[in-house]
Amino acid sequence: MLDTQKRGNLYLALLHYSVYNKNERVVSTALTNLDIHDIARAARTFGIAKYYLVTPLIKQQKLAKRILAHWCSGFGAKYNPKRKEALELVAISDSLNDVCEDIYSYWGIKPKIIVTDAKFFDRSIDYINLRKLIEEGSQPYLLLFGTGWGVTEDIIRNSDYVLSPVRGDSDYYHLSVRSAAAIILDRLLGTR
Amino acid sequence: MLDTQKRGNLYLALLHYSVYNKNERVVSTALTNLDIHDIARAARTFGIAKYYLVTPLIKQQKLAKRILAHWCSGFGAKYNPKRKEALELVAISDSLNDVCEDIYSYWGIKPKIIVTDAKFFDRSIDYINLRKLIEEGSQPYLLLFGTGWGVTEDIIRNSDYVLSPVRGDSDYYHLSVRSAAAIILDRLLGTR
Repeated sequence: MLDTQKRGNLYLALLHYSVYNKNERVVSTALTNLDIHDIARAARTFGIAKYYLVTPLIKQQKLAKRILAHWCSGFGAKYNPKRKEALELVAISDSLNDVCEDIYSYWGIKPKIIVTDAKFFDRSIDYINLRKLIEEGSQPYLLLFGTGWGVTEDIIRNSDYVLSPVRGDSDYYHLSVRSAAAIILDRLLGTR
Repeated sequence: MLDTQKRGNLYLALLHYSVYNKNERVVSTALTNLDIHDIARAARTFGIAKYYLVTPLIKQQKLAKRILAHWCSGFGAKYNPKRKEALELVAISDSLNDVCEDIYSYWGIKPKIIVTDAKFFDRSIDYINLRKLIEEGSQPYLLLFGTGWGVTEDIIRNSDYVLSPVRGDSDYYHLSVRSAAAIILDRLLGTR
């Protein structure tokens, strides 16, 4: 059962800006349909309060709105109501600032920002400790995922926490953002 | 570091046949490009021995070969060598039988088959116990994922184990196969 008291304080944002491309240039990436679907389904499964798609590009926002409308009120809503239930969690946002303001407007408290990254940082927080903080429930948290080659340094610098990367037992750590998000939500909110 | 002694005995197969569609009819589903990529990247991250794409449809096998050739020896291999490293784990197979024979030909032992499903079964095995079995290392295991609406009943009946479903803290459990595979590999092989 969804315990909104307990789970309702974790938010998720997928950033299409500002992120790096392959050549370490700061870019706006394009939306990926399955990022929207897969992460929304995982978000709904684990009780995320809201899933923000962040892009400053108006054309990309329009595309996202079309996709969401198809599944939330168009043909898709009848064809697959379970998909509707997941995609209803998705909001489109211009910027990380706007996301924080939206959460602030609901809570009256700024969210603590947690960045996810494939690298370790000196100040990385582990899953057990972050899970405990989230479970206290009195404070909203915003979990950031970058597309492309990851969020830019200024976002990492200005975050409250950097989450330890997901690692297997190998020297390879190149998960898709969809896989990384699924694993991280399971580690933070999943039950065994 | 990849510990092949320990990790080399877990195999993964993604079945496009025989699975159910939305209306509980047995069908062959179409390949999905991101199923190949996402699951291969997770498989490589967590040290899966081999990732089998199973479809009896020759045209679908040809499509899979084209995708794999692009990333393993074509333009993609130079453009993104990390992707090559993951996709080199992928093999194309006609049937579950053929997969089992391939593993048998390497080990001289038939693999124990573990089915994953979104439902609980009386005989479901949990993650901790399955992890222990895999870690013993003397026996190959084959983890099955179904596309569409899941693998058919006969496959479940003939399996050695059914793995407990991934559940969050909600009544919603409609993860994509990509997300479910990522979480399950993390639960069975991940380090914290």
